[in-house]
Amino acid sequence: MYDVYEIRKDFPVLEKVIYLDSGATTQTPKPAVEAMNDFFYNYAANYGRGAHRLSIQATNAFEDARETVADFLNAPPENTIMTKNTTDSINIVANGIGFESGDHIITTAVEHHSNYVPWLRQKESGVLVSVADIDSEGFVNPNQIDEMITENTKLIAVGHISNVFGSVQDIEKIIKIARRNNIPVLIDGAQSAGHMEIDFKSLDCDYFAAAGHKGLLGPQGTGVLCIKDPDTLQPSVLGGGTTSEADLCGFKTKSSPECFEAGTPNLPGIIGLGAAVEYLQKIGVADVETHDNQLARSAADRLNEMDGVSVYGPKNRAGLVSFNIDGLEPHTVAMRLDQLNICVRSGYHCAMPGQKALGINGSSRASFALYNTEEEINIFIDAVSKIAESRN
Amino acid sequence: MYDVYEIRKDFPVLEKVIYLDSGATTQTPKPAVEAMNDFFYNYAANYGRGAHRLSIQATNAFEDARETVADFLNAPPENTIMTKNTTDSINIVANGIGFESGDHIITTAVEHHSNYVPWLRQKESGVLVSVADIDSEGFVNPNQIDEMITENTKLIAVGHISNVFGSVQDIEKIIKIARRNNIPVLIDGAQSAGHMEIDFKSLDCDYFAAAGHKGLLGPQGTGVLCIKDPDTLQPSVLGGGTTSEADLCGFKTKSSPECFEAGTPNLPGIIGLGAAVEYLQKIGVADVETHDNQLARSAADRLNEMDGVSVYGPKNRAGLVSFNIDGLEPHTVAMRLDQLNICVRSGYHCAMPGQKALGINGSSRASFALYNTEEEINIFIDAVSKIAESRN
Repeated sequence: MYDVYEIRKDFPVLEKVIYLDSGATTQTPKPAVEAMNDFFYNYAANYGRGAHRLSIQATNAFEDARETVADFLNAPPENTIMTKNTTDSINIVANGIGFESGDHIITTAVEHHSNYVPWLRQKESGVLVSVADIDSEGFVNPNQIDEMITENTKLIAVGHISNVFGSVQDIEKIIKIARRNNIPVLIDGAQSAGHMEIDFKSLDCDYFAAAGHKGLLGPQGTGVLCIKDPDTLQPSVLGGGTTSEADLCGFKTKSSPECFEAGTPNLPGIIGLGAAVEYLQKIGVADVETHDNQLARSAADRLNEMDGVSVYGPKNRAGLVSFNIDGLEPHTVAMRLDQLNICVRSGYHCAMPGQKALGINGSSRASFALYNTEEEINIFIDAVSKIAESRN
Repeated sequence: MYDVYEIRKDFPVLEKVIYLDSGATTQTPKPAVEAMNDFFYNYAANYGRGAHRLSIQATNAFEDARETVADFLNAPPENTIMTKNTTDSINIVANGIGFESGDHIITTAVEHHSNYVPWLRQKESGVLVSVADIDSEGFVNPNQIDEMITENTKLIAVGHISNVFGSVQDIEKIIKIARRNNIPVLIDGAQSAGHMEIDFKSLDCDYFAAAGHKGLLGPQGTGVLCIKDPDTLQPSVLGGGTTSEADLCGFKTKSSPECFEAGTPNLPGIIGLGAAVEYLQKIGVADVETHDNQLARSAADRLNEMDGVSVYGPKNRAGLVSFNIDGLEPHTVAMRLDQLNICVRSGYHCAMPGQKALGINGSSRASFALYNTEEEINIFIDAVSKIAESRN
């Protein structure tokens, strides 16, 4: 049984504020923080299979965490790279494919800058970039992507869930189109991993990037990149850990995942992430998805009923709702909500192109997670309602 | 007064083992772990100056930590980039300078792979790389670097302290040579930051890279890069946080430090690092240097007296000592020490070229930090002595 009040006990900060900014960063549950403390106080050491007892214990804990995350996403552990954040994951692909002048990349107007700027910058080296449109609800049309494909298309990069609109893209269809044309496809799962079931093998995409500190409930400083075929990428960051041999003439690079994890890994962070994912697994991600989406849809419906309030995104949204109050800056709305102890984010949410395309100059965004309650939504809705009324 | 027993109270794991692997990762003091817990339990949120109260508090704590680290290294905060580790810091430079075919880089044979492979890989794009020799004690001769300089030399990259030999390079002289020839110089401070006073401005180097989890006592997943002139580097990782504007045609990149910190930062890690550096400042890094070096020199002298034991590095070493026992593999030595509850590292220490150059096939390494005691060194020395005797 999904018991949100039981869950909330593991997130002490929720006693102080109504936290509706999980689209940016979720809170980390106590068992994950305790796993990190256990590392720091009992076996902190550097990675290394063949070293002393602390190092072996730390290495095993790190690799166990990798397996937990890989299993959760149904990806092979050896191709599940532990990164710093989604941006890091995506840039490993962007800097690793080796695009050449004349190559073609397809992305969309709804992307977070992290899944947009790394592709757009390739234009500097003569790469062509096509940006698929979005409709008024924040959806991409897979058929348009199909039509954009040329014989030079080297990658299709699409976000799973829009961090502004909560629109869930039809990535299954987009991946099918990519497969049929033999084009690699990257899915930005920043807003989906941990908020809905992800099956990397069934999805059959080439790259799946996600954050550790959003739906997966881990600490900031962690992310993940699942890769179907590591041979498609050259490591762009090299050093200790990536190198099996080096002499005065050259060097040899290790195989995946090590070759993509240069330098000392964030052992405490990844160990915390592993514990967070175990926590999530116990609760059940399907129930979390239902919970988050219900809250978001209820909030959106009620905001929609208010005079002078604009709500963005589709009816069947994932767990977030962006909105504006006529005549008020998004930051003003967020600050007034903050005065009432309600935390929402405001601005462009690092996703300017989509909002500009729809004529939206930023918005306030409430985003939900497994620990939010109906009561919190009621308070939030009342607060927005009062702010909207007080304009007049 | 430097009180090692008082200091040890802040590192609980030291009650269980004799930890002589601080060259890889130092233990993190309680106040730093507690600062991270405070973040997780009281104000965890994403970066963002203009958002809700938790986000503002988190952002301020992150920026305070940046200032603490920058002040400690006497570097301008706006040019002090918070990274994942030293390797990350160095690769930001390696991928950011924009080397072209025909350019020339000078590095040395004593480097850690992190300050070696990123340069060597540039050969793939037609860059020439010269590797300065080391002498039998692990020293580089600045005059050789001077002689290697050509009109195409675009960078000199040198490690401050060798992680194998404990040799402290004459970086002042090397930087002077670089300045005289108007060539940028990068110092790899992985083994020096936190173990000796660093004054970035006085050093007058262009880039100073260091780890958070070594001498600075912070958690893994943190590092730092001080840059004299940010305009000399193109950011190689782009996304959220680095971008001030984006539309369907292009994007604008923020200025330093944001442009080099793509994606959600490791807020808890950096906040922990800030607290760790404050802790270190209270103790005094000059005293720490004296303490570490005394232990290392005492250990080296006593190892040197043993039959069948080879010790590497100079007499006036920094706080580590690498050694071998004739007829025993380094890993065997480390494992036997581990059975006696003593943690040392063994192998090539991610620094193959220097050891191969001197005909050393790996070594065991004891490395020291502010919390190690004379008694621990005595136990370590006795243990090595017994292992060496038991060979016969």
